[in-house]
Amino acid sequence: MADLITLTTDFGAADGFVGAMKGVILTLAPQATIVDIAHDIPPHDVRAGAFALETALPHFPPGSIHVVVVDPGVGSDRDALLVVSPHGMFLAPDNGVLTSVTPADGRVSIYALDRPEFWRSRVSNTFHGRDVFAPVAAHLATGVPPAALGTPREDMVRLPWPQPCRDGNTVTGEVIHVDRFGNLITNLRLADLGSDPGRARVRLRGATIWGIASHYAAGNGIIALVNSAGRIEIALPSASAAQTLGVGVGEIVHVLPAQP
Amino acid sequence: MADLITLTTDFGAADGFVGAMKGVILTLAPQATIVDIAHDIPPHDVRAGAFALETALPHFPPGSIHVVVVDPGVGSDRDALLVVSPHGMFLAPDNGVLTSVTPADGRVSIYALDRPEFWRSRVSNTFHGRDVFAPVAAHLATGVPPAALGTPREDMVRLPWPQPCRDGNTVTGEVIHVDRFGNLITNLRLADLGSDPGRARVRLRGATIWGIASHYAAGNGIIALVNSAGRIEIALPSASAAQTLGVGVGEIVHVLPAQP
Amino acid sequence: MADLITLTTDFGAADGFVGAMKGVILTLAPQATIVDIAHDIPPHDVRAGAFALETALPHFPPGSIHVVVVDPGVGSDRDALLVVSPHGMFLAPDNGVLTSVTPADGRVSIYALDRPEFWRSRVSNTFHGRDVFAPVAAHLATGVPPAALGTPREDMVRLPWPQPCRDGNTVTGEVIHVDRFGNLITNLRLADLGSDPGRARVRLRGATIWGIASHYAAGNGIIALVNSAGRIEIALPSASAAQTLGVGVGEIVHVLPAQP
Repeated sequence: MADLITLTTDFGAADGFVGAMKGVILTLAPQATIVDIAHDIPPHDVRAGAFALETALPHFPPGSIHVVVVDPGVGSDRDALLVVSPHGMFLAPDNGVLTSVTPADGRVSIYALDRPEFWRSRVSNTFHGRDVFAPVAAHLATGVPPAALGTPREDMVRLPWPQPCRDGNTVTGEVIHVDRFGNLITNLRLADLGSDPGRARVRLRGATIWGIASHYAAGNGIIALVNSAGRIEIALPSASAAQTLGVGVGEIVHVLPAQP
Repeated sequence: MADLITLTTDFGAADGFVGAMKGVILTLAPQATIVDIAHDIPPHDVRAGAFALETALPHFPPGSIHVVVVDPGVGSDRDALLVVSPHGMFLAPDNGVLTSVTPADGRVSIYALDRPEFWRSRVSNTFHGRDVFAPVAAHLATGVPPAALGTPREDMVRLPWPQPCRDGNTVTGEVIHVDRFGNLITNLRLADLGSDPGRARVRLRGATIWGIASHYAAGNGIIALVNSAGRIEIALPSASAAQTLGVGVGEIVHVLPAQP
Repeated sequence: MADLITLTTDFGAADGFVGAMKGVILTLAPQATIVDIAHDIPPHDVRAGAFALETALPHFPPGSIHVVVVDPGVGSDRDALLVVSPHGMFLAPDNGVLTSVTPADGRVSIYALDRPEFWRSRVSNTFHGRDVFAPVAAHLATGVPPAALGTPREDMVRLPWPQPCRDGNTVTGEVIHVDRFGNLITNLRLADLGSDPGRARVRLRGATIWGIASHYAAGNGIIALVNSAGRIEIALPSASAAQTLGVGVGEIVHVLPAQP
């Protein structure tokens, strides 16, 4: 399946940027299958890009080639990376967007892309998606080995993803993403709710939620539930919790596990 | 063409939800061709989803596999359905979203999906698109027969699509959809305008439209025309009728056929 | 590669219009590969469509089939065109949307589509994307020669793309596109900045920009740079220049090249 190439960008669907990348790929690797992941990542929002990757990429066949272009530093001295892991090959700027999909566990190989012979002949300073990442993805798809495309590197930029902290009986986390439905996804997990999650309390902006709901349509008011990625999520049935509560990324969430 | 899988969702293009579904499908059915229908269905809007399906799906080859995830009740006791008709195979929650594409005419077979061995090994309560519908679609594409995937059912939820009613010489309908251009699509059809549609009047919010225009660019003001699905549609040339008139879904429309 | 069909429309992703086109194509040409270019072209905005095509289409393999539906005049007496150039085959309404990708240099063949036997059997007046352009694209993909599909024409509508003008030492151009990031793309090119671009000044809305930045992340305030299409672009690092300056398409831009 080395001919499966996914694209994740903040390019939207009103400009021709995504189309240009597809044209470059299909010119060099006509047999490639291109799969759109998401192109409405908020402009320049590396963290939101990382979150979308965490949601989507783990479900692809190993060996897939994943191209990620959320790249406010394009043209600066930030490196362009190829990361090879047991789960796939990842092409992205070195800005942390790959944090969630390429764990720092020694099983990844990191290359700084520095072989212009595999790029477009003229490289702009504003569109490496088209000029660097797309052609390198196509060359990977046609069988060029990763080591031919760049120089090995030890490390890469990793986002300082916020971790929950515990103070006495209280666990403090925060909202790390708001999805299209206005659901508030936190950095808390079920284990943070203690041994009896059904009796834990979740506090956010003065509101207190008792226990964990089983699904979105349970109840009428604000609920907390464990989402499909194992994260604690705060939601309103058929409405936007973010809009109703006026809450966004970074909002603090307190959890009080049930007293034993 | 059993390897053609279409996707229609309210997941948008800023999160990785659609990507996750594609990954699951391509892992189980690498030969499948995935076709995006529409992912910006308004969140939780089952009726808008049904309308998009009516527009798109009848044009696909029979035997195509159509996956539809507009699913506010995910994780509740609503069933997940597979509907097999002469026109294709349809996977969706049992909430009426398939109303327009699977007529109640006895030529469809309905199955409630209840064979977890064809699902992801761990099924969340919040993302059946990834955990149930995507893997079942992939198994269908690889040749698993529909009857192996669920238990036959007699019926399914159907949306109470509003029907026009006639009172004396007046036919009363309503706006059932507003498209991206702000065109107001009604539940009225040409036959509702009587034997001489060119002399009928259409009334909406105090405005009266005389006759039926041939195309969008005809005239300067508000027009009524027969759209590509045979429905009476109210439009403004190169502008949004919905925005200009302040009108949305549910707005009442009166038709006065010409007097003979 | 005659089986590569790209789609560019103003249909969005909330309605089933794009899906209907894909269904028609895949019914007639099951082996075709469909590539989405952009579907969020602003409604009826022919100029924005032309700009997206300029960005994307030159990167596709020659022989690709490009379908473009930004078509406010659908159903009127505007022609539906097939344009064949060394770079590909282009299907679009005759409204200028192809201006930037089919140069008036005598190397293109233009056909007015007038052979209904290659269209859907019933053609609406509101959706030629589905009824004319999609089936003709499919027939092209299956090997029907262009000349069988229409009647040769000498000319086509071309957009009067604004050209920069020089008055004494000042070059005056204008903003011709605003992209998703709020970058202001002008009709000026590097040559318009004189022999020493680093000392030229760019003026817009009272603001004066000195010199040309190398990339988006250079500096903190408003910058001018040469973008990936060779155009002068005005930008704000990680912010929207359009929104911050309150500037849109048509805004006048003055350039004062450095005095020798």
